[in-house]
Amino acid sequence: MSDTRPIGVFDSGIGGLTVVKALRDLLPNENIFYLGDTARVPYGNKSAETVERYSLELAGMLTRENAKVIVVACNTVSSVSIPKLRANVSVPVIGVIEPGAQAAIATTRNRHVGVIGTRATIRSGAYENALRALNVHVRVTSQACPLLVPLIEEGMLDDELTDQTIARYLDPMIAAGIDTLVLGCTHYPLLTSAIARVLKRQIVVVDSAQNCARAVEEMLDHQSLRAAPLNHGQLRVALTDAADSFLNVARNALQLKVGEIEIRALP
Amino acid sequence: MSDTRPIGVFDSGIGGLTVVKALRDLLPNENIFYLGDTARVPYGNKSAETVERYSLELAGMLTRENAKVIVVACNTVSSVSIPKLRANVSVPVIGVIEPGAQAAIATTRNRHVGVIGTRATIRSGAYENALRALNVHVRVTSQACPLLVPLIEEGMLDDELTDQTIARYLDPMIAAGIDTLVLGCTHYPLLTSAIARVLKRQIVVVDSAQNCARAVEEMLDHQSLRAAPLNHGQLRVALTDAADSFLNVARNALQLKVGEIEIRALP
Repeated sequence: MSDTRPIGVFDSGIGGLTVVKALRDLLPNENIFYLGDTARVPYGNKSAETVERYSLELAGMLTRENAKVIVVACNTVSSVSIPKLRANVSVPVIGVIEPGAQAAIATTRNRHVGVIGTRATIRSGAYENALRALNVHVRVTSQACPLLVPLIEEGMLDDELTDQTIARYLDPMIAAGIDTLVLGCTHYPLLTSAIARVLKRQIVVVDSAQNCARAVEEMLDHQSLRAAPLNHGQLRVALTDAADSFLNVARNALQLKVGEIEIRALP
Repeated sequence: MSDTRPIGVFDSGIGGLTVVKALRDLLPNENIFYLGDTARVPYGNKSAETVERYSLELAGMLTRENAKVIVVACNTVSSVSIPKLRANVSVPVIGVIEPGAQAAIATTRNRHVGVIGTRATIRSGAYENALRALNVHVRVTSQACPLLVPLIEEGMLDDELTDQTIARYLDPMIAAGIDTLVLGCTHYPLLTSAIARVLKRQIVVVDSAQNCARAVEEMLDHQSLRAAPLNHGQLRVALTDAADSFLNVARNALQLKVGEIEIRALP
């Protein structure tokens, strides 16, 4: 039995391609349909009601593409819309926050976890809540890092200015004693090397994109939704408006083969 | 005769308060009504048609506030919407680009002008066109500086990282031989000190906010629209959605007295 319906992945923009990369690496037989809402990016400053409404629209577009699972490759949306999506969509919905929190709890030895993300994600307290739900004794040190997305979108992935900015954010968390750091923004896996330079291997990095991909794999196995091992997985990428230069940054950094970009009108 | 109708100022967000500050300093007798479209900020990646439509909506809201002139305190909007606004609005419309270009041409000795702005403003070529329209012999070196707005919005106005970022952008322009630098983004006047540190006074900085305020003064004088010298100018600030932390950054850096912020629904 081979279920070749695509894994549907959506994000407010391009950043969720890090989740696509992790899915491609882990599940090369699966077809993937990625939808980025570049017409309305960023979601970070929009109200929860607006983000929920947009999420339902995007999930509906993925359902019409016959997606067998919907992956929310965006921390802002994951922190706000998962319950609403699960209530309104007939296929499984997987976000990035629960898998990242589970991996962090499995990783930490001293029960002190650091979380970095956009201002909106940190303010939502979503990781803190998810971590505490798994272990009430965990200590969480959170830090909003609003300059990292602009640096990433400029392609400054291997740049002294970026390293200095990262150090500015992480040094107090290192000093506070975290032993695990959750990358709570789908852009951040593009900074894995830069973050490793600053951390100097003292601290284990939990990449929510990779952990999200593992959660998708587990769910597909449990529900017998896998494509056959012989299937050669295809990737389709659709955006709601023309892509900006960040698409090239992500494509190159991730070494992701993306064909013709499809433009889809919002409903 | 005293015309106490307000000067109507609009911007996609909060950055245009630098123009308000310049207007307050130059025209303390004038009432000012500022409208920031924080619900839909940023405009930089939106299509020209969308920006025009939003501009007409905001200008309409200012007209209903009985504005005697409409000031477009946003480079993106100024580069796109001025003709459409002038065709649809019954009061004078003043943007930031023409006054900045005029001041730069009056300033440059070697006819080599530098322009910095957001990616959208630089890509539009609006300053280049305005400068060339005034002097066909002018040489223009433009540089998009996409990291400066995030640094400003984080309040990092006096910070080594910001100075290094500015140097990264300006060093090649200095090496190319510009003698005049136009700050082509209404956020940038908040970096005047930092930019001066990097330029080391070799180059004259043209602040489009100040030059826009001078253009407003001149127009009010020509058309006899000034408030009486005894009028104590009032400032009202309205936003289309709740303000973020940048409002405090701007208010403090500009030493601008802003009372209660009014929230106005879009039409």
